[in-house]
Amino acid sequence: MSFKKRVAVVGATGIAGQQFLAALHKHPWFEVVRLAASPRSAGKTYEEALRSPNGQVAWWQSEPIPPAYRHMRLESAPELVLSDVDIVFTAIDTDAARELEPLYAAQKPVISTASAFRMEADVPLLIPGVNSDHSAVIRLQQKNRGWKGFIVPIPNCTTYGLACSLAPLQKHFGIKLVVMTSMQATSGAGRNGGVLALDTIDNLIPYIPKEEEKVEVETQKILGSYQSGAFVNATLAVTSTCTRVPVTDGHTEAVFVATERPITVEAAKAAFSEFQPDFGTLPSAPTQFFTLHDDPFHPQPRIDRDQDQGMTTHIGRIRLEKALHGIKYVLLSHNTKAGAAKGALLVAESLCLQSFI
Amino acid sequence: MSFKKRVAVVGATGIAGQQFLAALHKHPWFEVVRLAASPRSAGKTYEEALRSPNGQVAWWQSEPIPPAYRHMRLESAPELVLSDVDIVFTAIDTDAARELEPLYAAQKPVISTASAFRMEADVPLLIPGVNSDHSAVIRLQQKNRGWKGFIVPIPNCTTYGLACSLAPLQKHFGIKLVVMTSMQATSGAGRNGGVLALDTIDNLIPYIPKEEEKVEVETQKILGSYQSGAFVNATLAVTSTCTRVPVTDGHTEAVFVATERPITVEAAKAAFSEFQPDFGTLPSAPTQFFTLHDDPFHPQPRIDRDQDQGMTTHIGRIRLEKALHGIKYVLLSHNTKAGAAKGALLVAESLCLQSFI
Amino acid sequence: MSFKKRVAVVGATGIAGQQFLAALHKHPWFEVVRLAASPRSAGKTYEEALRSPNGQVAWWQSEPIPPAYRHMRLESAPELVLSDVDIVFTAIDTDAARELEPLYAAQKPVISTASAFRMEADVPLLIPGVNSDHSAVIRLQQKNRGWKGFIVPIPNCTTYGLACSLAPLQKHFGIKLVVMTSMQATSGAGRNGGVLALDTIDNLIPYIPKEEEKVEVETQKILGSYQSGAFVNATLAVTSTCTRVPVTDGHTEAVFVATERPITVEAAKAAFSEFQPDFGTLPSAPTQFFTLHDDPFHPQPRIDRDQDQGMTTHIGRIRLEKALHGIKYVLLSHNTKAGAAKGALLVAESLCLQSFI
Amino acid sequence: MSFKKRVAVVGATGIAGQQFLAALHKHPWFEVVRLAASPRSAGKTYEEALRSPNGQVAWWQSEPIPPAYRHMRLESAPELVLSDVDIVFTAIDTDAARELEPLYAAQKPVISTASAFRMEADVPLLIPGVNSDHSAVIRLQQKNRGWKGFIVPIPNCTTYGLACSLAPLQKHFGIKLVVMTSMQATSGAGRNGGVLALDTIDNLIPYIPKEEEKVEVETQKILGSYQSGAFVNATLAVTSTCTRVPVTDGHTEAVFVATERPITVEAAKAAFSEFQPDFGTLPSAPTQFFTLHDDPFHPQPRIDRDQDQGMTTHIGRIRLEKALHGIKYVLLSHNTKAGAAKGALLVAESLCLQSFI
Repeated sequence: MSFKKRVAVVGATGIAGQQFLAALHKHPWFEVVRLAASPRSAGKTYEEALRSPNGQVAWWQSEPIPPAYRHMRLESAPELVLSDVDIVFTAIDTDAARELEPLYAAQKPVISTASAFRMEADVPLLIPGVNSDHSAVIRLQQKNRGWKGFIVPIPNCTTYGLACSLAPLQKHFGIKLVVMTSMQATSGAGRNGGVLALDTIDNLIPYIPKEEEKVEVETQKILGSYQSGAFVNATLAVTSTCTRVPVTDGHTEAVFVATERPITVEAAKAAFSEFQPDFGTLPSAPTQFFTLHDDPFHPQPRIDRDQDQGMTTHIGRIRLEKALHGIKYVLLSHNTKAGAAKGALLVAESLCLQSFI
Repeated sequence: MSFKKRVAVVGATGIAGQQFLAALHKHPWFEVVRLAASPRSAGKTYEEALRSPNGQVAWWQSEPIPPAYRHMRLESAPELVLSDVDIVFTAIDTDAARELEPLYAAQKPVISTASAFRMEADVPLLIPGVNSDHSAVIRLQQKNRGWKGFIVPIPNCTTYGLACSLAPLQKHFGIKLVVMTSMQATSGAGRNGGVLALDTIDNLIPYIPKEEEKVEVETQKILGSYQSGAFVNATLAVTSTCTRVPVTDGHTEAVFVATERPITVEAAKAAFSEFQPDFGTLPSAPTQFFTLHDDPFHPQPRIDRDQDQGMTTHIGRIRLEKALHGIKYVLLSHNTKAGAAKGALLVAESLCLQSFI
Repeated sequence: MSFKKRVAVVGATGIAGQQFLAALHKHPWFEVVRLAASPRSAGKTYEEALRSPNGQVAWWQSEPIPPAYRHMRLESAPELVLSDVDIVFTAIDTDAARELEPLYAAQKPVISTASAFRMEADVPLLIPGVNSDHSAVIRLQQKNRGWKGFIVPIPNCTTYGLACSLAPLQKHFGIKLVVMTSMQATSGAGRNGGVLALDTIDNLIPYIPKEEEKVEVETQKILGSYQSGAFVNATLAVTSTCTRVPVTDGHTEAVFVATERPITVEAAKAAFSEFQPDFGTLPSAPTQFFTLHDDPFHPQPRIDRDQDQGMTTHIGRIRLEKALHGIKYVLLSHNTKAGAAKGALLVAESLCLQSFI
Repeated sequence: MSFKKRVAVVGATGIAGQQFLAALHKHPWFEVVRLAASPRSAGKTYEEALRSPNGQVAWWQSEPIPPAYRHMRLESAPELVLSDVDIVFTAIDTDAARELEPLYAAQKPVISTASAFRMEADVPLLIPGVNSDHSAVIRLQQKNRGWKGFIVPIPNCTTYGLACSLAPLQKHFGIKLVVMTSMQATSGAGRNGGVLALDTIDNLIPYIPKEEEKVEVETQKILGSYQSGAFVNATLAVTSTCTRVPVTDGHTEAVFVATERPITVEAAKAAFSEFQPDFGTLPSAPTQFFTLHDDPFHPQPRIDRDQDQGMTTHIGRIRLEKALHGIKYVLLSHNTKAGAAKGALLVAESLCLQSFI
């Protein structure tokens, strides 16, 4: 690829937008040419926009702000000009996404972290390696809506790890039922209206609004098939309880699976191990799709989350599930890498290979 | 009750033993007359035994050491004299319990926090209000073993809250299957060989050795029946994943229940609300057996655990469970109060009322 | 006291206001008759006002909302009627205090947690037992401002423990210089604009806006004298660094003191031990003004903060300070009890005894 | 450098030893050829030695165990053969160091993290870039003790950052007095006998045995001079309070400095900025010796510690210190990188350049 694709990041000042910038820094295929945020930040440099009156710079990544972005001027998201842009990455809330993403998609490919369009009938919910063939619906979407571009959202960060882990099980054994309890990191709660320190010191919160609904329907769509121009949901039932725990990054999920056909621990391990999509040279792809742990005390979020660029899905504690006739295990997935910005980059890279971008 | 029962606490220097002393301080029915610990502490005063060479006093409760105990001399647990004692509370590990508790039980009632005898055929696993009638097996135990006293263990702290919450559901709707994921406090891990700070800052541990096995078999025994001299286990299947989270006290459990008969959220709430055993004047009994939460963000361990002396079981997020045909909810139970020393006191109080003590 | 004083709490829905309500619940001298908040909450019941659209009830205390307040209707703070009120407790921000407190003080005594009036020349900054005689300025304040009531603010929560601990040292040894580093709890940061979970998991924040300035000037005023109608600041120099650590409640301070006259560890301990103001029957007074710790691993916030109703100041690690010629120690003070609402109640109780209320 | 130096790591299974292995993995100059631990581990492979009976592998780094070490056999530390070794890195406790390090030093250079020999008159306490000239004492040490090798310890991890930050101030302004309060990470407490989770959830510990004494004397030695065969301590007075806070890695220190000559904030910043030792191509040297922060909310341990390989010293909140006539600031230093294994590597690299190794 001799020239880099030119990228706009919308919602660049928020925590998810910052993760995009960190992930795009020195990206071999993509180059950030435009940053956009709410109209009140428009015209400021990126660094100015992050600085609050008390001197605090609201940059929450552990690498400093890449110098290339410091002095870029923010544009107003509703007025963003896309003529010189090849891909738009959006890191904005649902309401803003519902309004802005169609404007962008009329012209250019939009890869979105928002939930606004995930469940639409002509929109794929892509996890490269799991349901890459769902991208075929993009042509239909463009035709339906008269767009030159398109919208491809990534799944909810909690759905991401669950759907990855279920894919090889469904393929080899069939899945009837999934019971999942998540212990989610606080970074997913965002900065504004986020979880306060008082909530998570010596505490956990047993509820995350709208999360369980998303996990349940998104999993069925991702694991479903796209046939003759329509999605057919997977028939598996999914039930979950989603909680917030005092962890910065890394969602842990305790999963119980009832399979359609008999399964053993060894067969499950083999299914996970063999599941290694051919990502070719995609820069954001994990080296290993799954990282299996024999030590029952792993995966642990702080210790394991950053392995393999935060893009591998960790699976541990695989045991036979006698009550449900299946298996149970614990997974760990990096919610702000694989499950967010970096995962969106992988989707974009994958769509480049498939020539949608 | 004009005279107080005289009590010995074995394992008095450990964290569970300290919880006994805190709970027994100013107890209206019980009076501590003997403290025992390992032979190497014998002869020291209680305070001396807690003091390490660097000056640290290893007392981990938030109330100071009650003055009455400071200067009591510790006895060697294997040589403990029980002639002037009415009840022995033990807070020792499984191996020690297996050896010492029969010695004590030959003479006196032993209420134990250890797992050593929980699953024996002539030993009840008591939760007052849930299976108080199981105490009938005590007479058989005494006969079988030729003991004047007896052993009554309390359940594992994670089993405790789960079994409490299942009792009214089983009674009204029947239970086929329970899928549970626990998020357990670190205090349960004890002091020696316990969980280190590094393990639980920005982290969680997805495994607690032997915990899941205990939860599964103990629940079946507690919810079973005692008939014609034998326990009949409840037929419900129980499967679980037990994890350790950065919380000091209070075990949270996400529970999914398949019921035998149809259930609604309202019916479940009614079943919990009506379940209010008659504890009479037992000093350690909760005012409300269950505390129900309508706010979906509760129960939360730090905020809710100490209500009602730490003896109530909190239930929140009751929702219909469509996938399993039943209900799902989140419970919170205080692992070092209801699920440990204070729960053991309630067992002893209850056995006093039943004239076993 | 045959009748209870009637109390209004302004800012009742915020975290500090909630602390007032928890502290006033069953108070033997005071009875809450009015609750006030911002105009947009006026007319709602207290419980309604705390409930957000997603069902969450924003009540952050570990005791449930006392039933007496649940259904009280909130009044609009700017229009609060005070005819039937004896004392106004305010828990509002500085700007609101600057505007509203004079309105209230024109009629009634106002005890304030805000910093707005702390440094005014006719306003006392009271710590009962430390500078109770400063209340004499109240008469001057009333004369100056033509008020029937008055404003008495309590100090900043970080100043509180420091000034308490310095009082006996100043009395016996004189103080030249104080160097203090605080490790402050997150509860002090409030709910709105507060510290986020991401900030304090595996982290600390080395800056609290405006805090160091307050500590430095307030300490000089509190330890100064009130003579012939004017305050004379204490001449000690105070320098500090204030940080925020992952602790919910309880401010810890590492203090280094240069004294004017020679001091020994024993003499310092004696000075602390003897410092026991005669609080008579004041309901919110600590049993011991200071709690001294010999165990060098104490005081610890989670373990020690709630002793003595959270009203005692803990002092540990008293060592000779050779470099500065004085002593050094670590103190712990409960920032939301002694240093906030409960401390304000003690001020009000003390002013009742002095017949200012 | 055409051939790599061959390295032995003693105490390889402990947390500090693991940090050595992680830091030495792919090191361009050094190659691990021998691992040693206590005699009871001798003969086991490295991975076997880390595995406990319950299946847990006690490897606490976030990178997996480098494959090169997994199957290396551990040797017994007291019997370690050094004939084919160029450098010995020790990560053992003080008592073991006192016994074993002289055995090794008789033959080979020993770089030690232990405190055993730090204060000996012929032993340098090296921080490359701060007091590199102190290495001259090595020849004297070899002569005195008849050793072919030598012992060079690194400072205590808390001393490290403090001494680094004081070096430019002393050079430009002279230092009379330093008052320091540390907020130290739990990783420094080690694994065995370490800090337990219960201690640091919602808590801090105001005492670290022996830490303050080390900081005070080591700082004077490091900032002193080596002249005519003897160390002359710097005359500055150092007083400190060392505390443990709920942070995994990164020691934060609040520092107040009285200077001999007048200082301004700008002059201090310039002194820090200009202080950039010439490390040439040393692989473990920081790119910037100091990282200065203008944002007063930084440095923060979780966000900033890993910058520049964890080898830079962060300085923030530089303010004029009026009470002591000097400046005050907050520093952050990575206790398990710059202040431990990686810092020891930098010492070794520096001694290679100086031809001591």
